[in-house]
Amino acid sequence: MKLAISCQLDYKIEYQTPLVLMLRPRSGAGQWVIKEEYLLEPSVPVTEYTDLYGNLCQRVFTPDGSFSIKTSAIVDVADQIDVDFSANFVPVQELPDDCLIYILPSRYCESDKLGNLAASIVAHVETGYEQVEAIRTWINTNIRYEYGHSNASTSAQDTAQSRIGVCRDFSHLGVALCRSMNIPARFVVGYLYELKPMDLHAWFEAYLGGRWYTFDATQTEPRGNRVVLAYGRDAADVALATQFGNMELQTMWVAVEPAPEQ
Amino acid sequence: MKLAISCQLDYKIEYQTPLVLMLRPRSGAGQWVIKEEYLLEPSVPVTEYTDLYGNLCQRVFTPDGSFSIKTSAIVDVADQIDVDFSANFVPVQELPDDCLIYILPSRYCESDKLGNLAASIVAHVETGYEQVEAIRTWINTNIRYEYGHSNASTSAQDTAQSRIGVCRDFSHLGVALCRSMNIPARFVVGYLYELKPMDLHAWFEAYLGGRWYTFDATQTEPRGNRVVLAYGRDAADVALATQFGNMELQTMWVAVEPAPEQ
Amino acid sequence: MKLAISCQLDYKIEYQTPLVLMLRPRSGAGQWVIKEEYLLEPSVPVTEYTDLYGNLCQRVFTPDGSFSIKTSAIVDVADQIDVDFSANFVPVQELPDDCLIYILPSRYCESDKLGNLAASIVAHVETGYEQVEAIRTWINTNIRYEYGHSNASTSAQDTAQSRIGVCRDFSHLGVALCRSMNIPARFVVGYLYELKPMDLHAWFEAYLGGRWYTFDATQTEPRGNRVVLAYGRDAADVALATQFGNMELQTMWVAVEPAPEQ
Amino acid sequence: MKLAISCQLDYKIEYQTPLVLMLRPRSGAGQWVIKEEYLLEPSVPVTEYTDLYGNLCQRVFTPDGSFSIKTSAIVDVADQIDVDFSANFVPVQELPDDCLIYILPSRYCESDKLGNLAASIVAHVETGYEQVEAIRTWINTNIRYEYGHSNASTSAQDTAQSRIGVCRDFSHLGVALCRSMNIPARFVVGYLYELKPMDLHAWFEAYLGGRWYTFDATQTEPRGNRVVLAYGRDAADVALATQFGNMELQTMWVAVEPAPEQ
Repeated sequence: MKLAISCQLDYKIEYQTPLVLMLRPRSGAGQWVIKEEYLLEPSVPVTEYTDLYGNLCQRVFTPDGSFSIKTSAIVDVADQIDVDFSANFVPVQELPDDCLIYILPSRYCESDKLGNLAASIVAHVETGYEQVEAIRTWINTNIRYEYGHSNASTSAQDTAQSRIGVCRDFSHLGVALCRSMNIPARFVVGYLYELKPMDLHAWFEAYLGGRWYTFDATQTEPRGNRVVLAYGRDAADVALATQFGNMELQTMWVAVEPAPEQ
Repeated sequence: MKLAISCQLDYKIEYQTPLVLMLRPRSGAGQWVIKEEYLLEPSVPVTEYTDLYGNLCQRVFTPDGSFSIKTSAIVDVADQIDVDFSANFVPVQELPDDCLIYILPSRYCESDKLGNLAASIVAHVETGYEQVEAIRTWINTNIRYEYGHSNASTSAQDTAQSRIGVCRDFSHLGVALCRSMNIPARFVVGYLYELKPMDLHAWFEAYLGGRWYTFDATQTEPRGNRVVLAYGRDAADVALATQFGNMELQTMWVAVEPAPEQ
Repeated sequence: MKLAISCQLDYKIEYQTPLVLMLRPRSGAGQWVIKEEYLLEPSVPVTEYTDLYGNLCQRVFTPDGSFSIKTSAIVDVADQIDVDFSANFVPVQELPDDCLIYILPSRYCESDKLGNLAASIVAHVETGYEQVEAIRTWINTNIRYEYGHSNASTSAQDTAQSRIGVCRDFSHLGVALCRSMNIPARFVVGYLYELKPMDLHAWFEAYLGGRWYTFDATQTEPRGNRVVLAYGRDAADVALATQFGNMELQTMWVAVEPAPEQ
Repeated sequence: MKLAISCQLDYKIEYQTPLVLMLRPRSGAGQWVIKEEYLLEPSVPVTEYTDLYGNLCQRVFTPDGSFSIKTSAIVDVADQIDVDFSANFVPVQELPDDCLIYILPSRYCESDKLGNLAASIVAHVETGYEQVEAIRTWINTNIRYEYGHSNASTSAQDTAQSRIGVCRDFSHLGVALCRSMNIPARFVVGYLYELKPMDLHAWFEAYLGGRWYTFDATQTEPRGNRVVLAYGRDAADVALATQFGNMELQTMWVAVEPAPEQ
């Protein structure tokens, strides 16, 4: 369906601060950006570049005082994510070269330390899509979704121990468990229609049967209507706003609605 | 200033045809896309990728019958292009690696055949920016701007002989003459405010003193208020619409206006 | 088989000259560089970068006087090129994004002007591999291999008219004819075992049935034992030595032998 | 000087295992590979690709039984590393786009947790090169070089606490401390002449005054004669041999000698 997404960040800033944003969705195989708006108030110089993972990044040196970022877009996306229990495990030696970084450990996904947990979860499961689905279900069942227990330093291993977290933590754990079995997995940030409470969201993708599939451990059922903002190895790669100094985020406002008829 | 640009292409299509478009301006160092809209009517699947030169390309397999592409954007750009007569020639051995392709001949810019003409134009001119400006002025003075004499196969060499052409031909000639003196030059397509008659436009950039400068041989004076759609070696790289089959373009409509106050 | 290749270039140089070389073969899917040597005499600073097409390029600012470049390598390659008459034509809308540049015209391959010739050659031929093979055979039969008639400015269209040329011209014509039918084709330079007379060589590849196949219009039969030095759209992209100034090549020496047993 | 480097890995392998190697040095701005050899015994198919950081990676699916990798090269490198106490701190807003990833935390470099330590080390030091040199000296003085205390999971934070480690740990700590002050830092692996005991080595680079400088916290004095094998954010990016399964490394042999006169 056509989704109208929007995100507004309002800052109070004492000193000018370098800021990198990833708030412009990019058209690609799975989504088409029909309409888009990106406003800085007050208006300041801004440049855009593409990072190593193909994400569009906006660089700005903020003014001091009040500073607002207002982005909105209408994006055409699939109502349903693809689900395919027959999608098979791809042996490492047959993976495309560019998938290999997604089976290595990364900052928040210590896959090198989570092999035992992964093995216990998938003990009696067919290799391939079913394994990732088992991981996803296990996280959904065994990790409590609750704010305030994790923070920007919390890793997959931390979450495996605490058993509490938010979408970011659920996704890191999913990624790390997949990688511990040599299944390429990447971290995704974006918007999800009818997410409650509404916010920016994180989920993960796994590479199976020659393509990437979407998995969301925070949900009980497969759900489409997602708009991707950025892909990466984990949250360290895809922070939607990375500030290099002190900036106080005063309010953040996110909305995902059906796009109005044109 | 903030420019409201728009471009509409209306096709009549007998059979479904693969089509690659380059109609989405990209934010970068010199321009910021505040707002943007990209509509296909009827709506058909479309994907987007980045080409070798960093341009955004839209791929679509058209429907048959009527098909319209409607793009518009509000883009913040500089009112004036930078002019710097002190920008010096950069010796080949000091050029950045990624500039080297821009001193080689390409499909429409046979720089290997235009050395004599370039030498005669810049005979008594200081090396560097002044040389490129001399080339630009020479083209502006000596080539007649007239539609109907050149076509999609016309090259810089053809134009050097015929002395007639349009913006595309003027730019190819400028690019080829620069390259024949080992000055990196690239072809640019985009929008120019107050272009008469209004249309999509082509100009060129030359690399001098460590950065790219804008030159437009169709104009008598330096003019800013340009929105870049794509960069390339010549028109072969940056065709705004490349169709792989028969499609009849019925109407094309381009507008560049000051953006309305928000 | 394992081939021992070598190439030596001896220059006489009046003034120091920027020079870009593409003489280092790269390991990849089809070849493995077991051993390699790359000497400049006298020794001068040299850097290496990767161009847009993935080729390794060596940049040097030559000394004046005598200057020699001596490269050699032992490379493991396939004895036979793959031949598959069932490899089908891939419709443009199904091509990978990075193949699209290889169906556009380029400096020496004016595919936009050679559609009629291509159509006549493949008039009664099955689409796909057979078409490319028909083109290859037509060139081999109808173009006379002879030195001295073509030069660095000769294009596919020139060769289609003159019907005389060398390996570079044969390959440009093959590339251009394929592209005129929307078959991706790229220009290849490298070494061929038992080429007579021995020299650096050029051939082309066409994308069919989801992969690249090797074609060599200078040969009557398919032959393997090739070492690739560089890929590109045409010779403008893959000049093995591009000099930006006057340098006199005094001797050039190329050898391809079976590698000695280790 | 011209260094003759070599590295041999001998494995005993029960089952065929995917393996990614980074053992082929690449010519670039700082080093020129004159001669090189790369042997697999027994010979098995191998491919090579370039990773996100520009490193050459060799992919092989090992045989079972005994398997040896033998690489050697003669590389021309600088006798001294550049030292420049006047190289200034580059504010984040002025960094090149591609430096930004090197100020973010990564798997083994939790720069987000080491700000206090960094601040205490550079408390009375001029910003820029001197800060990095202060960090380097602090590590050299305060971390004990000893094998057996750290392992493949040890991170910069771990080392900051344990105060014991090897070259990899020293470098991770240096990288993390630099990044915590917004100084881009990257992890380097390669060879160092006269390293005692001889082994593959790790050090780091920091971006100051518009270029990268070499720092080695394991050494008391600046030392040149280094051959770089790979760059990355930390050891997770540049493992010289990444095995995806069980393989027993039986012996590893590394040598760095002055190259014999030719």
